[in-house]
Amino acid sequence: MRIFEDETLEDLQTGGLFLIQKKSGFRFGIDAILLADFSKDIPSCKTLDLCTGNGIIPVLLSAKTDTDRIFGLEIQKSAFDTAVRSVEYNNLENRLFMTLGDVKNAAEIYGKRQFDLITCNPPYMPNGRGIKNPDSEKVIARHEVLCTLEDIIAVSAQLLRHRGHLALVHKPSRLADIIYLMRKNDIEPKRIRFIHKSQGAEPSLLLVDGSFKGGKELRIMPPLYLYNDDGSETAELMEVYGR
Amino acid sequence: MRIFEDETLEDLQTGGLFLIQKKSGFRFGIDAILLADFSKDIPSCKTLDLCTGNGIIPVLLSAKTDTDRIFGLEIQKSAFDTAVRSVEYNNLENRLFMTLGDVKNAAEIYGKRQFDLITCNPPYMPNGRGIKNPDSEKVIARHEVLCTLEDIIAVSAQLLRHRGHLALVHKPSRLADIIYLMRKNDIEPKRIRFIHKSQGAEPSLLLVDGSFKGGKELRIMPPLYLYNDDGSETAELMEVYGR
Repeated sequence: MRIFEDETLEDLQTGGLFLIQKKSGFRFGIDAILLADFSKDIPSCKTLDLCTGNGIIPVLLSAKTDTDRIFGLEIQKSAFDTAVRSVEYNNLENRLFMTLGDVKNAAEIYGKRQFDLITCNPPYMPNGRGIKNPDSEKVIARHEVLCTLEDIIAVSAQLLRHRGHLALVHKPSRLADIIYLMRKNDIEPKRIRFIHKSQGAEPSLLLVDGSFKGGKELRIMPPLYLYNDDGSETAELMEVYGR
Repeated sequence: MRIFEDETLEDLQTGGLFLIQKKSGFRFGIDAILLADFSKDIPSCKTLDLCTGNGIIPVLLSAKTDTDRIFGLEIQKSAFDTAVRSVEYNNLENRLFMTLGDVKNAAEIYGKRQFDLITCNPPYMPNGRGIKNPDSEKVIARHEVLCTLEDIIAVSAQLLRHRGHLALVHKPSRLADIIYLMRKNDIEPKRIRFIHKSQGAEPSLLLVDGSFKGGKELRIMPPLYLYNDDGSETAELMEVYGR
């Protein structure tokens, strides 16, 4: 297995897994780890991770769930290449399947009504207009240059089986957009959790789980705090990390 | 001022104000107090409280704001009667104006584009079908028998001035309904706050503030906890009570 000079090999400290990622490209953060943890209890035989990047979420879900097949779709060649090699490095070729392609074409790539669970850690910023290097890897991963929140939710409504789930991590400021677009696309929000850096702080992240054609029954979970007042990790965050 | 035998006179411990309410009818709770506090910093010359009941929110806003005119609309005669007498009892006839009428007719009663702020502590339960006494005072106050969430939001979109605000208290399970209906009616959610009885608990109430024709800029506030682990009131709750 080749790890290139501009890459690092991360020990995920979960199920003996490792992940290859670029030193200077988009590197996974706590949002991906939180989303994998939030999604792990949603029953699924067949899962798809949209905007999968270096494949962090499929790799984590392979350890946290017993899902038979987990797919990852990524539009950027360099991130896709690291994802493919991470799958090989972890000997997960019989469960994890990476595809290079555009989210907007996902229903053609995979076929409709195929998945029990779709996860996505999408670009957070509303658009990428006016950005100096709109084709740079980091910009594409962070800004809605190549796909918007509406693209992701609309295509998920085509890909999900009846009562299948879409789980997203996003910025709290996008809550109204997410709920409105889910409802518009027949995906009913079922669970929401806010992530706060510390007590007394506004949330910095948002986890949402919606069900395609699901009934109206929304649960707002207790807040998840990441750090104690002294800066140490909370017991709950350590649990998310699997420590 | 007459206080009847089936009524009590509550000391609101705010601005020397009192409120008359029925012993056995719908009595105001912490939700009304939280909503008045949440709404107090929204600038308004002319405010309307829908489903005002015994008028608790207009009476509290008279002390917490310097709004010139505060209107209350209530459909139930007995609650309306106590609201009118509470206005007189507190000598607020030149600032508080109570009307007996139906929320669904509010745009005809007051005229369109009249208010800077609309508040509402509406019936929480989705509908009142199958209830034994659908005409009882408590059932009307708690279930969507005579008006639905959609009625309230739709009429607010007619009553509010450009960039005027609608502030609601509701159950967290209705968050998706509230956001979806606000967006549908051109009211953009701007602030959301969840109220938790204690640390680690799911929220028991939700405060939402939306702006008619407002820009997309949603803020999720830090959670508000009501009670400490030992059951005593939190400092923040005491502040809401004005203690």
